[in-house]
Amino acid sequence: MSPFTGSAARTCDWEHLRVDLTDGVATVTLARPEKLNALTFGGYADLRDLLAELSRERAVRALVLAGEGRGFCSGGDVDEIIGATLAMDTAQLLDFNRMTGQVVRAIRECPFPVIAAVHGVAAGAGAVLALAADFRVADPSARFAFLFTRVGLSGGDMGAAYLLPRVVGLGHATRLLMLGEPVRAPEAERIGLISELTDEGRADEAAQALARRLADGPALAHAQTKALLTAELDMPLAAAVELDASTQALLMNGEDYAEFHAAFTEKRPPKWRGR
Amino acid sequence: MSPFTGSAARTCDWEHLRVDLTDGVATVTLARPEKLNALTFGGYADLRDLLAELSRERAVRALVLAGEGRGFCSGGDVDEIIGATLAMDTAQLLDFNRMTGQVVRAIRECPFPVIAAVHGVAAGAGAVLALAADFRVADPSARFAFLFTRVGLSGGDMGAAYLLPRVVGLGHATRLLMLGEPVRAPEAERIGLISELTDEGRADEAAQALARRLADGPALAHAQTKALLTAELDMPLAAAVELDASTQALLMNGEDYAEFHAAFTEKRPPKWRGR
Amino acid sequence: MSPFTGSAARTCDWEHLRVDLTDGVATVTLARPEKLNALTFGGYADLRDLLAELSRERAVRALVLAGEGRGFCSGGDVDEIIGATLAMDTAQLLDFNRMTGQVVRAIRECPFPVIAAVHGVAAGAGAVLALAADFRVADPSARFAFLFTRVGLSGGDMGAAYLLPRVVGLGHATRLLMLGEPVRAPEAERIGLISELTDEGRADEAAQALARRLADGPALAHAQTKALLTAELDMPLAAAVELDASTQALLMNGEDYAEFHAAFTEKRPPKWRGR
Repeated sequence: MSPFTGSAARTCDWEHLRVDLTDGVATVTLARPEKLNALTFGGYADLRDLLAELSRERAVRALVLAGEGRGFCSGGDVDEIIGATLAMDTAQLLDFNRMTGQVVRAIRECPFPVIAAVHGVAAGAGAVLALAADFRVADPSARFAFLFTRVGLSGGDMGAAYLLPRVVGLGHATRLLMLGEPVRAPEAERIGLISELTDEGRADEAAQALARRLADGPALAHAQTKALLTAELDMPLAAAVELDASTQALLMNGEDYAEFHAAFTEKRPPKWRGR
Repeated sequence: MSPFTGSAARTCDWEHLRVDLTDGVATVTLARPEKLNALTFGGYADLRDLLAELSRERAVRALVLAGEGRGFCSGGDVDEIIGATLAMDTAQLLDFNRMTGQVVRAIRECPFPVIAAVHGVAAGAGAVLALAADFRVADPSARFAFLFTRVGLSGGDMGAAYLLPRVVGLGHATRLLMLGEPVRAPEAERIGLISELTDEGRADEAAQALARRLADGPALAHAQTKALLTAELDMPLAAAVELDASTQALLMNGEDYAEFHAAFTEKRPPKWRGR
Repeated sequence: MSPFTGSAARTCDWEHLRVDLTDGVATVTLARPEKLNALTFGGYADLRDLLAELSRERAVRALVLAGEGRGFCSGGDVDEIIGATLAMDTAQLLDFNRMTGQVVRAIRECPFPVIAAVHGVAAGAGAVLALAADFRVADPSARFAFLFTRVGLSGGDMGAAYLLPRVVGLGHATRLLMLGEPVRAPEAERIGLISELTDEGRADEAAQALARRLADGPALAHAQTKALLTAELDMPLAAAVELDASTQALLMNGEDYAEFHAAFTEKRPPKWRGR
């Protein structure tokens, strides 16, 4: 346990999520299958708070975000969210929309890679959760739909107008966010929205395998790679090169780098410590 | 009509363009087919001023930019522009090049989506006009050529060195801008430069259909999606997420969002008002 | 020779590189084939210093970076670099990592296009050198591997976490930098990492042909195109459009632009001067 762990105990029960933590791999499952894992206010809040807890504690080296049942996540619940927001005042509306954005920032900024395991629908906020992940491991049933304009809202929701052009280019991003049409797995793979296309029904298994590999490997190197990818989207080249230099200088003092060299010299596989 | 419409009447006749406005869809046609719609000083100026008028007035909810005759637009006219600029002093050269850039900024910043309907050649400035549009609806005869280096100029013209890497990636953009070679429809689709590939001769029709759909839909949501896509290319993630939150809070107070919910509840299609 | 050439003579012999300069085309060959052109401290330093010399002198209009023997470059030498850095203090580690970053900045910022001629392996720092080039001309034997996490370091090395998302998109870049797996030529071409795929064994020849074409063409226009592509990744749209305008105004006063017009009028090919 990190010396920077506060005295608040980890929350054991989350009402809106199923959480498992095994040997550095956290698995967070959206578990409302009867509603295609539609998100409620409590669901967003739990994701925000869980990611904050896991980021503080340093027990997690990779996280899988999965959906139970027929699909990944159908987005914000029409009844429980759209209906309720119609009765909100401006301050409440801002609070709600900031909360959803905080979930995306938490996924991009947490100190471990996040793998979305996508089968079936990833729609609306569900599509953005997957988009914010570092990896999208998906099976052929996956379909992504940025539905926001279909309900009269902006396609730029939860950072989607920032993230999607940086993943698939501005042309595809404009089409997907403006029209809200579904992108099925073959197109999603072609335009770079899927990281790994698996066989039918194998997305969860492949996501777990990837998470295990990342957690058992040089996990601090993985975490820094993620941090730099996130930060350098917003930096000029000269600053990025300087950040890379100081990051590598730091990691060259780390245990895993020395272990790589020892293992290489001794012609054996390295025993990664993740630090 | 918007309360923010000034007292200057809309210009009815444009010498260098054909303009139609029907139920929220503006169609701007480059109409110099005997010269493959080559642009003259007056042609650029008309595009700049027309877009400014249309942006002020709020009657337009989608705009189609098309070319009459055998192609979309062959770019700046060699005789009327290159010849004339050779006699200009530095201030005049700056004025001219700023004007062409203003057309591109107007396309990116106008409060409605712009659809380029491309058949045949889209060369030089014509390629950049198409690039600046939100959608490029093209038929198989389309070919894009960023010809600037072929006349001894920089491939970065009218924002092309900013826009093209964000649409097709830096590698393809470098090749296209540095070499000025034509990109035919199959490659343009493959690298993300075409938004919708139509059957031969159907680009205008498909562009009109898309514009109609955008204008008849939740047009304010579309306009905000475009504004966020444009703005968030230049913003860090944290700022983008905050902009998304305030935009959604705004639109959640709008008529279309309430209408979606009512229609959903009553199991009928929404009647979009565009506000 | 440029009036801005200093009195220091050009270095004729570089210990770690083979350098040829013929009619404006520089060819820099990594020449340590028995080690797959693995880079040593001296190799990085030579690349940094050579690029600085060539950038000052203005004799070069295009540069080919090639590798002798079975591959392009296997990256930093495990024995000579990893071993040595394990004994360094923090200041030395920073110095080393800044030097490697300076090589990448020199490739991106030198006033001529750089063409990487890639066959066989381009791994680690070798993959980043190729990535930093303006063109990657590669044959089917090429494979790129951003191996950094495999040695316990960050995938963001020498600007890779800045450059790669801008070339292939954030999704592919995350996968390649985090996992360090090899990308073979077909995938590299599909995701936009290869500029020109040649027949087997023809990468050097095709890179030379491209360099010759660039050097014999309007070389100042090419140099400015490169400079704008580099700069405008870090600029907002409005600033980019202004930079384009002033660049074109400048080049419209240049010899090549007038020559294009004269040649066009006289129906003959232009005789480019590169200025």
